Amino acid sequence: MRRIVILGSTGSIGRQTLDIVRAFRHEFEVVGLAAGNNTALLLEQVAEFNPRYIWCTTPPAPLPEGTTLLPMDEMAALPEVDQVMVALMGAVGLSPTMNALRAGKQVALSNKEPIVMAGQRLKETEAKHGGVILPVDSEPSAIWQCLQGEDNHIRRLMITASGGPFRRTPLEELEKVTPEQALQHPTWRMGDKITIDSATLMNKAFEVIESHWLFSVPWEDIAVVVHPQSTIHSMVEFDDGSVKAQLGPPSMRLPIQYALFYPQRFANDEIPRLDITAPWSLDFEPLQPERYPCFGLAVAAGKAGGTTPTVLSAADEVAVQAFLRGSIGFTDIYRVVEQVLGEHHSQPSPDLGSIVEADRLRSPAAVGDREYFSV
Amino acid sequence: MRRIVILGSTGSIGRQTLDIVRAFRHEFEVVGLAAGNNTALLLEQVAEFNPRYIWCTTPPAPLPEGTTLLPMDEMAALPEVDQVMVALMGAVGLSPTMNALRAGKQVALSNKEPIVMAGQRLKETEAKHGGVILPVDSEPSAIWQCLQGEDNHIRRLMITASGGPFRRTPLEELEKVTPEQALQHPTWRMGDKITIDSATLMNKAFEVIESHWLFSVPWEDIAVVVHPQSTIHSMVEFDDGSVKAQLGPPSMRLPIQYALFYPQRFANDEIPRLDITAPWSLDFEPLQPERYPCFGLAVAAGKAGGTTPTVLSAADEVAVQAFLRGSIGFTDIYRVVEQVLGEHHSQPSPDLGSIVEADRLRSPAAVGDREYFSV
Repeated sequence: MRRIVILGSTGSIGRQTLDIVRAFRHEFEVVGLAAGNNTALLLEQVAEFNPRYIWCTTPPAPLPEGTTLLPMDEMAALPEVDQVMVALMGAVGLSPTMNALRAGKQVALSNKEPIVMAGQRLKETEAKHGGVILPVDSEPSAIWQCLQGEDNHIRRLMITASGGPFRRTPLEELEKVTPEQALQHPTWRMGDKITIDSATLMNKAFEVIESHWLFSVPWEDIAVVVHPQSTIHSMVEFDDGSVKAQLGPPSMRLPIQYALFYPQRFANDEIPRLDITAPWSLDFEPLQPERYPCFGLAVAAGKAGGTTPTVLSAADEVAVQAFLRGSIGFTDIYRVVEQVLGEHHSQPSPDLGSIVEADRLRSPAAVGDREYFSV
Repeated sequence: MRRIVILGSTGSIGRQTLDIVRAFRHEFEVVGLAAGNNTALLLEQVAEFNPRYIWCTTPPAPLPEGTTLLPMDEMAALPEVDQVMVALMGAVGLSPTMNALRAGKQVALSNKEPIVMAGQRLKETEAKHGGVILPVDSEPSAIWQCLQGEDNHIRRLMITASGGPFRRTPLEELEKVTPEQALQHPTWRMGDKITIDSATLMNKAFEVIESHWLFSVPWEDIAVVVHPQSTIHSMVEFDDGSVKAQLGPPSMRLPIQYALFYPQRFANDEIPRLDITAPWSLDFEPLQPERYPCFGLAVAAGKAGGTTPTVLSAADEVAVQAFLRGSIGFTDIYRVVEQVLGEHHSQPSPDLGSIVEADRLRSPAAVGDREYFSV
């Protein structure tokens, strides 16, 4: 029986996590559910899964019978909890992730920002308190799966990128593309922020940063290869030249379930299977740096370390929201992030307080917590 | 220090094994080398690697200083030996493989026939005496690599097949193809027998039989998918739908080295690397049963068990030699094998003696041992 807390239970990853809990009902006890402002859905989930603890931005009155309101930081560290699914969006995931690791929990982390912002601090906390981060993101999950049973040196990680909707768009047309066009991801259905990050390849740079910290691989040994079908989720090359790949139809259910049941694998009809009954092809091409300037900028920020990746993440969030609102153009996302990074004086080896301070520019007070939750 | 015996040291796999020994000279002691009739190359190898024991069909007189002539069956079971590389061709590999397993050795097996002929007996011997078969064949090696660290049920093996040189040849032209055309394998450079077996896909059926026994996977859970580039060497699908693949440029050096150093992986400049600096594609298509009738015939023979797969292997060898000599046409290979199988009264649960007896039709006495060694 896995005793689980799901932070961000009403978002896409949170809902798919509950689908897996539903499919393996006798394997889980849902101890806590935390949501943003989708109180209606949270109440439905509470009725079905009977958590003792809940959290949301505007709590219902009265609370559902038998539930107690508990902030996410505390929910993540409850003694009776084994697993914490952090399915939040943006910087708000950092603090509960850190708390869960300090309490020695298994943290299934679908939320990239905590690692981008504070990868080194999270890994130090993991090592010190015996918690463990289990990646839920599809590409790091693929790498993690390929590394099973391999107590061997990694020569190279090859993270695949779909290339987004503008892989073949003439470069001079990029400044005119609309949010509607940028939201048409060729292979994955995801939230708006991450879909735009996939169009700029900012998201792929975040995965490079994530993989650097999660798997302790030097920056120069992490490659990105454009693979429009998104069937191979990532590859690992070992010293003897052998390459392992993890593949399957795009679906977040597999990496979610793998993190929840690791190292066990169970059949689940809701996870799509590779179809080999018809011809299929997998194409690969090198990444064009001039098409995706955000990628190089963001990897450089990751390498720079200190508070720079936090500012990267914050500036990107603000820029993407501005693009989605129609305030700036698609190619301005790069310009905004580059400018903000250029003005930032990075603080080396920041503590959590400094990271949170550097993150301030992300959230104008008026926006509140709402943008951190996908609905 | 690995104390190794190489049976078939002058063939393609034997020579590549010695290349690896040369590249890691301090890791190996070569205890014995056995060859066929290429005495000149064997003597060169003896001068370089100083084995105590040698074997060949026409031994030189006098023997090189410090060497003793020893039959392969005894060489494979020497107490001072840890690893036996069985790089023979055809049925001659069965007896030394069995002897090595009885003596509890690690047997790196590149030779398919022993498993095709006597898979069940070999697995029983392995279990009883603590020896272990390590696959060297590229596709089973890929599966073996994908299974590392996975203590999980296998839902499906997907063995890849290049489809050979006649993947696009109109079916009505197949009966006219020449040995020269059939020997033009699109991706692998191998011996003549195995190259023809790759054109008929007989070889792929042998790998299905091999994989059934090596990995204890039911026949119905083994699929073959045509993949002309031979970059993905095989794939494993687990119960949760996750697929792992092992890939790289076609080269036997990797599976040889993996078997010798398992589970360790070491850098070796002679093993080619996947090139991701230019665009590349991987194509897959279902196998066309009407194009490759030998495939279905051979898998059915494998499933039938008893002495049937031995007769399959023997009949195929005779038919392929007849095709290479120009005595029969390409499509006659199927007709010959089907006819021989049709006339055979299979003996269930045969002992080794019955298997060897069933294998008799393979080698007319006049041919001697020569055909078992590639030169």
